[in-house]
Amino acid sequence: MDAVLKVLADNYGAYLRDLAEFVAIPSVSTDPAHESDVQRAADWVAQRLRKAGPIEVEKWQTPHHPAVFGRWNDAPGAPTVLVYGHMDVQPPDPVELWHSPPFTLTARDGRLYGRGVSDDKASMLLPILAAEAFFLAGEKPPVNLRLLFEAEEEIGSVDLPMLVRERRDALACDVVLSADGAMWRPEKPSITVSSRGLAGLSFTVRGPGKDLHSGRHGGGLANPLHAAAELVASLHDGGKVAVAGFYDDVEAIDPRLRKALDQLSFDEKKYLAEVGASAGFGEPGYSMLERQWYRPTIEVNGFYGGYQGPGRKTVLPREAHVKLTCRLVPNQRPDDVIRKLRRHLEQHCGPGISLAIEETDGGAMPYRVSPDSPAMRAAADTLAHIFGMPPDFVGMGGTVPITTTFRDVLGADTIFFSFSTADEDIHAPDEFYRPERFRMGLEAWVLIWRNLAKQLHIDRTQ
Amino acid sequence: MDAVLKVLADNYGAYLRDLAEFVAIPSVSTDPAHESDVQRAADWVAQRLRKAGPIEVEKWQTPHHPAVFGRWNDAPGAPTVLVYGHMDVQPPDPVELWHSPPFTLTARDGRLYGRGVSDDKASMLLPILAAEAFFLAGEKPPVNLRLLFEAEEEIGSVDLPMLVRERRDALACDVVLSADGAMWRPEKPSITVSSRGLAGLSFTVRGPGKDLHSGRHGGGLANPLHAAAELVASLHDGGKVAVAGFYDDVEAIDPRLRKALDQLSFDEKKYLAEVGASAGFGEPGYSMLERQWYRPTIEVNGFYGGYQGPGRKTVLPREAHVKLTCRLVPNQRPDDVIRKLRRHLEQHCGPGISLAIEETDGGAMPYRVSPDSPAMRAAADTLAHIFGMPPDFVGMGGTVPITTTFRDVLGADTIFFSFSTADEDIHAPDEFYRPERFRMGLEAWVLIWRNLAKQLHIDRTQ
Repeated sequence: MDAVLKVLADNYGAYLRDLAEFVAIPSVSTDPAHESDVQRAADWVAQRLRKAGPIEVEKWQTPHHPAVFGRWNDAPGAPTVLVYGHMDVQPPDPVELWHSPPFTLTARDGRLYGRGVSDDKASMLLPILAAEAFFLAGEKPPVNLRLLFEAEEEIGSVDLPMLVRERRDALACDVVLSADGAMWRPEKPSITVSSRGLAGLSFTVRGPGKDLHSGRHGGGLANPLHAAAELVASLHDGGKVAVAGFYDDVEAIDPRLRKALDQLSFDEKKYLAEVGASAGFGEPGYSMLERQWYRPTIEVNGFYGGYQGPGRKTVLPREAHVKLTCRLVPNQRPDDVIRKLRRHLEQHCGPGISLAIEETDGGAMPYRVSPDSPAMRAAADTLAHIFGMPPDFVGMGGTVPITTTFRDVLGADTIFFSFSTADEDIHAPDEFYRPERFRMGLEAWVLIWRNLAKQLHIDRTQ
Repeated sequence: MDAVLKVLADNYGAYLRDLAEFVAIPSVSTDPAHESDVQRAADWVAQRLRKAGPIEVEKWQTPHHPAVFGRWNDAPGAPTVLVYGHMDVQPPDPVELWHSPPFTLTARDGRLYGRGVSDDKASMLLPILAAEAFFLAGEKPPVNLRLLFEAEEEIGSVDLPMLVRERRDALACDVVLSADGAMWRPEKPSITVSSRGLAGLSFTVRGPGKDLHSGRHGGGLANPLHAAAELVASLHDGGKVAVAGFYDDVEAIDPRLRKALDQLSFDEKKYLAEVGASAGFGEPGYSMLERQWYRPTIEVNGFYGGYQGPGRKTVLPREAHVKLTCRLVPNQRPDDVIRKLRRHLEQHCGPGISLAIEETDGGAMPYRVSPDSPAMRAAADTLAHIFGMPPDFVGMGGTVPITTTFRDVLGADTIFFSFSTADEDIHAPDEFYRPERFRMGLEAWVLIWRNLAKQLHIDRTQ
């Protein structure tokens, strides 16, 4: 047996204990109350990386949450691979819907449950453990390694573009392998060729200066809940976004992507049953997967105002709050979309209502990568070997904000190489990971480095 | 000096201590967690009533919260007056906006602050103290007294109609004086000739069976927050209610009421400044006071779903919740309005969304009373004497559900005789009461009983 793979097999129990330790740190980057937990997570990752072998490790502070960087450069002539992942997680709310404590890694029914286990802690732990296995087996990794783990993915990677620009020499590489960006289906491997961009804003509408009795005052004044509902309703018309200019820069779907969609076995009824929806809904004229992968959206993520407790309270509330995010596709730009949204909201705001728009982040650009590059071939070969079948090429509805920065600053494509799958309830109660994927992923990272050493080398000498 | 009024003047300090004790009991009837507090409030009222004099006192249990009943019947030949009030209060939320603890009666800037002090604890305490003053002065009240204090007003007086029907003999009376139903303005006395009815419902819209990642799934499925916003938006069209049939049974505004409106000095700009609104808004074709007193409304009191914490969470939530109440005018009926609302919501619910309508209560009928009755004249005379100016006749936007029951079961009109005023932030943070109104109210209750003894007596012998 291959010595490196033997090390992996021998240490699997210890790896699970590592994962449990990592999940136990509630590194919720969106909530200021968890700031010190995010720092703890960074310290944990740095320590684990140092333990893995002769890797230089640095903790890079930013204005918000730190990143951890590792460098191993002892493969002269071999390509340099930058591994990317993130250690921060979403809030566990609503906590009461979890069936085990969110920050206690819990094995149940053949799954591992915990906040962040799928997004992205298990998948980002794999390359650290794979690198360690080379050293423990007395070998060297076949490529030069850069490892970059951020803690701001769930807040839009706000500082990472700056960090990558400032540290471009340290991060210089031939290709990026992202441990984030889940596979499409558990039953078949896939490689993601696109991700949607993100633009988010929140707004508050205000009416009277204080909460009022809805009997005494109702009928005389604009109700902020009505106004906010009308604003939200105005964003769509029959599933199509109704914000002026929203679709102006949207590219028609590439015929190659449509063809890849046709070759997928996608059972919409089964999907709807999985997510517990009675019907699909969205932009007319497009299939479910087209809408989720290759068309832009506006989704309201939170809407609240007035009385929420038991029983009723006859209040005409002073304000209402809406949080929303848009998913973008080429060639939409977050700043342009935010500008159009802002104009739409301002124009649709009625009398007696004031609107305060709060942009929550600068957003992220949409991303596309060619399925024909040498790095992509190396990834496809690796997955075909591990899974015994060739991977599908799929789109991703979600966002990995850093891909465009890696392309713009480092000149490197990003290959999504995660062993999470899209059905693992990320951002929701009972997030889970499949332990068999943890095993397959360990081996896959060993193989893809070997394949990249071959394919990128061949490519260079042509 | 009149002996009864002297007793009142001598004991004012003790009365304030009574009020502080009463306010300290958080008798929030809408919240099951406060059930025992509501019972404590009933016990407190019963005890205070027994202390007031030779009044027979009973605590009447109901399926929800108890009522307290008092009877004093030693004025042979005199009319019988039923005093009505309520001891339950609204929740104190949002607690963080209060400037003193909601359940601690706090004097500040010449006002008395506390949850329920205006609605309705101070005003309902007045007739108890006035009755006591007669006994302490060695006199007898000039009318036979029935006193009924309920603890379900804030949950729509759900059990009181049944209670009044079952106890109709004990409650038999010539007229009802309600200690609930605030005066219109602090600077001038007023008597309310109408109150709006109430019909409330809450509903939940559900989409997927669980919270989903809005990136991966967004665009493919109906978002319950969008669906709920569209339902809420569909309820109105430019300030007018858009529910089919909603206005069918609405009576045109009585010319006498329009005339009384013309005689009021109402400064809309001042009103808007008081409530902190930049403009009025509502049904086109009606003035502010017409809309608030004599036209029906639908108001959303609460709307919530998705993520509400700091930062953002890119979730496509499984459900959204809406609480709403309608204010009704003659001749709308709550059951009919609920039926029309239900039909509207069901017809406007889109694909992939399920709607669950939860009626929160059976509602209350709208109410009108003639400004020309002997009891109304007695009330007007009393207020003219106490305030030194004749009262305005005004409408009330809010609801006193029990008025129609008293009329239907006991055959008695209800005269609103409260010493709260409509600007006292009831149902909102920093609810307050004016101490000078507490003094005036004590004297007014003594006088109105004397006036009723004369006027109703004269009326009978005609």
